[in-house]
Amino acid sequence: MAVYTDITDEELAGLLADFDLGNALSLKGVAEGVENSNFLLETEAGRYFLTVYERRVRADDLPFFLELLRWIAARGFPSATPIPDREGRLLKEVRGKPCAIVSFLSGLAVRRPNAAHCREAGAGLARLHLAAQGFPLSRLNDLGQGAWAGLFAGLGQAADGLKPGLATTISSDLELLALRWPKDLPSGVIHADFFPDNVFFANGKFAGAIDFYFACVDAFAYDIAIALNAWCFEPDGSFNITSARQLVAGYESHRKLSDLERSALPVLAHGAAMRFFLTRLHDWGATPQGALVRPKDPLEYERKLAVHRASPDLVLFG
Amino acid sequence: MAVYTDITDEELAGLLADFDLGNALSLKGVAEGVENSNFLLETEAGRYFLTVYERRVRADDLPFFLELLRWIAARGFPSATPIPDREGRLLKEVRGKPCAIVSFLSGLAVRRPNAAHCREAGAGLARLHLAAQGFPLSRLNDLGQGAWAGLFAGLGQAADGLKPGLATTISSDLELLALRWPKDLPSGVIHADFFPDNVFFANGKFAGAIDFYFACVDAFAYDIAIALNAWCFEPDGSFNITSARQLVAGYESHRKLSDLERSALPVLAHGAAMRFFLTRLHDWGATPQGALVRPKDPLEYERKLAVHRASPDLVLFG
Repeated sequence: MAVYTDITDEELAGLLADFDLGNALSLKGVAEGVENSNFLLETEAGRYFLTVYERRVRADDLPFFLELLRWIAARGFPSATPIPDREGRLLKEVRGKPCAIVSFLSGLAVRRPNAAHCREAGAGLARLHLAAQGFPLSRLNDLGQGAWAGLFAGLGQAADGLKPGLATTISSDLELLALRWPKDLPSGVIHADFFPDNVFFANGKFAGAIDFYFACVDAFAYDIAIALNAWCFEPDGSFNITSARQLVAGYESHRKLSDLERSALPVLAHGAAMRFFLTRLHDWGATPQGALVRPKDPLEYERKLAVHRASPDLVLFG
Repeated sequence: MAVYTDITDEELAGLLADFDLGNALSLKGVAEGVENSNFLLETEAGRYFLTVYERRVRADDLPFFLELLRWIAARGFPSATPIPDREGRLLKEVRGKPCAIVSFLSGLAVRRPNAAHCREAGAGLARLHLAAQGFPLSRLNDLGQGAWAGLFAGLGQAADGLKPGLATTISSDLELLALRWPKDLPSGVIHADFFPDNVFFANGKFAGAIDFYFACVDAFAYDIAIALNAWCFEPDGSFNITSARQLVAGYESHRKLSDLERSALPVLAHGAAMRFFLTRLHDWGATPQGALVRPKDPLEYERKLAVHRASPDLVLFG
């Protein structure tokens, strides 16, 4: 939860002057999004979100994210669509920071997804992969497998502080992943952060996805692996193979996996756990005491890593 | 800004089952309100706020606040109105905490009020005082003049920590205020926290007030004094007499002040500055490092106190 940027009524009026959305009727800071400040904005034309991009999102990446949202919305994928100003620009500025006005997406995130939710989530993820096909812009996955060793350099002490001996385990995991990482899987635009927080449901059905600020070009199956970790572990740390099978089945109801993709899922899930463990470990140490945002617990993903390490075929066979 | 309570989709569905508002379509934690957790709730019936009362609001006081909101709304005052469940109850429970669903109030708070805003705010405050007339419930002002000496006991060190010698100055202020505090002013329900944050405008006109969780029975003119401190000081600490006169004139466009009330404004404004200084001083010391809510700076009100101390007739004559 975060609202880093305070917007005055005058600044808001200045921004809206470039749009055909009428005057502002209300503006509420929303306790959502760690990377950005988000506001629910009501104007005479309807309801929108105003997102102000804070330092953690690279300004160079914003055209990719915003044009992607426009692209997938035009192809029927339910997501918050950026609203162009009168000159067609999506990326605007308020209080010296980049910002965008996007459409309001209804729906509720589920806190404790069941197998039926996982099936819907899988189907939604495949729809996203298909809707993004042909998107002309590209963005490297700067948190992909090639980046992990660099991310971990300097975090050894932090890892051992979390759990004695963990640094050695992580190093050996990283070697194994480098060795086994599949290179030639079908690729395209992936969400790369398809967590239950970022997926909306309405009446139990997939209703859309938000928070595309990690989207990039990488293997489709890696996106599934991220989702398997995020959706199919129970609060007690056990892996729910029924949920996992439903997630994959939901995905395949829109896009079939090749044998290569399917057999890569275990190592991809191990790697996906590594990616979230590493960024959480980094944020854990980097967040100053007294900050308004509490970092997420890296131990949750350390436990998932340990599960994949111990049962390398877990996501295929339970 | 604060969302202390996390609400799951199941808990929300359980709450809404008691209402005729249909199913939930979306729920967003709102970065607003220090005393409560607030959520923007969209259901099939429309938009609402869900307020979950946290420890700082006394549960015994909730019927006063909620019935007051219902009372003034029925008399045309624009505010968020509590929605009764099917059995007519306003006060509900979610996740073991008291809560209420209230109507959505549109409007924008102004960050830098000008004299015209002050006139509108004054008029709105008088409308509130008149709308609340006849309200049968009562609540003592537990932060009124009688409580200040007790509030300050134990905060002397904190005051001196803020500014050496401040404890002695505050003690002498408290004696002076006790001596001169007017006793027989016209009284009724007051807002008691009528700050720019809590007042909405639409097209430059007063559009309503929120956050009634300090409302109580006290002198009407004391409510004006609180507003004079909150609305009429410039960021550089100077008092804007034009804004103050407009605030009072706006008030008197709906409710005339007696000579007694008018001549009491200076000491009431001095006291109002004391009340906010003391609670901010208390919160400053009491907020643990690392808390998600940053306490408000007590020095802002220390400076206002000093201004009233130095120019006892400030709010009347500038």
